[in-house]
Amino acid sequence: MSDLELIQTRTGLRFQDQQLLQQVFVHRSYLNEHRSFPLGHNERLEFLGDAVLELVVTEYLYRNYPNPEGELTNWRSSLVKGEMLAKIAISLDFSEYLLLSYGEMRSGGKNKNQLLANAFEALLGALYLDQGYFPCQEFIHRTVTVHLQEILEQRLFVDPKSELQELTQEKFGITPHYLVLDESGPDHAKEFSAAVLIGEKELGRGSGNSKQVAQVAAAQSALHTLKAV
Amino acid sequence: MSDLELIQTRTGLRFQDQQLLQQVFVHRSYLNEHRSFPLGHNERLEFLGDAVLELVVTEYLYRNYPNPEGELTNWRSSLVKGEMLAKIAISLDFSEYLLLSYGEMRSGGKNKNQLLANAFEALLGALYLDQGYFPCQEFIHRTVTVHLQEILEQRLFVDPKSELQELTQEKFGITPHYLVLDESGPDHAKEFSAAVLIGEKELGRGSGNSKQVAQVAAAQSALHTLKAV
Repeated sequence: MSDLELIQTRTGLRFQDQQLLQQVFVHRSYLNEHRSFPLGHNERLEFLGDAVLELVVTEYLYRNYPNPEGELTNWRSSLVKGEMLAKIAISLDFSEYLLLSYGEMRSGGKNKNQLLANAFEALLGALYLDQGYFPCQEFIHRTVTVHLQEILEQRLFVDPKSELQELTQEKFGITPHYLVLDESGPDHAKEFSAAVLIGEKELGRGSGNSKQVAQVAAAQSALHTLKAV
Repeated sequence: MSDLELIQTRTGLRFQDQQLLQQVFVHRSYLNEHRSFPLGHNERLEFLGDAVLELVVTEYLYRNYPNPEGELTNWRSSLVKGEMLAKIAISLDFSEYLLLSYGEMRSGGKNKNQLLANAFEALLGALYLDQGYFPCQEFIHRTVTVHLQEILEQRLFVDPKSELQELTQEKFGITPHYLVLDESGPDHAKEFSAAVLIGEKELGRGSGNSKQVAQVAAAQSALHTLKAV
């Protein structure tokens, strides 16, 4: 069987446009060494596929769980993060089909997960172009959202305070700290507000019916800001 | 005319589920003061609508522009950022319909843009639930992507190097710097690679056929990492 046949058997998908499917596996580096290769690399497909994945997972969570938006956002992050997508891509034998430059192949490991995750998103982009939203939904449900139960049971999702700490530590070597700013309302409906800072810079504020809830909301707001700039 | 009638006239939309439309305008703070209000706040709808907006805009850019993913990502950021969505929400008279707590109303300005942008995303979430993807596409095309021409003509999108500098400056008071790491390949196909650092921390690497392109790619990779953690 050809690679394209194998991929389709492995994924349970059948593409009308086989060139589109081929392009999913073309890494930018491959084209440097194969200048007459007739197809482009997979980055634009990845751009599209990333947004398809986001909506399918978001809709799934929205429709199936009544939880607040903050929790669903955390769960979604765990489902669509590079590590998870790479794991899924590996289980579908993507590493056999990626077209890389010799140098990229030799350097191997380091960026491999990222390349695999990108190719998985490119596959979703290609499937969306080839067949539309609903086949993507079906495919994403059986490959991605199927992992939600294990994420919830093993609490593999990170809470916003840990996520923010990890981010500021890893990138800037600084741990955020929290201030409780305000406490208001009658006893049966107290409202707290909190701010999160690194050094003297305020990163975000939040409020809620306990100090902990207010701090989590502040961390969430900080993450939102850091990611949205 | 009732508020819901006015909103529908103003947006050119007609909802089957009028409660869903009402919920779009309910801010979390309103429920603190109106505990018997029969609807929830709009945050879960915003969570859904944000993903709908992302896919519609992404698909539009993918299908209409052959540009590299990095450029499309910048353009998309300019289209979906809070400031732009708030402007659109204001033009649709959203500020007349938002249900806020007395305190939130009095404090006014500060978070107003964010609240309006959130309500606009919530409207997209509600429209998606009420009518599906294609009506959202139609509505987003006439309210959001219609602004792409002015963004491109006035170069309102920020390039990745400026965006990264703004982010690290604003949040951490540090300016990133770039190192050219490597130059390889024959003269007609030179390949440069560059890294971006803040202090001694490397934030990202990139490569391309000029130093500038390699630096932009490094900045893009840094932004990607900062936003993806």
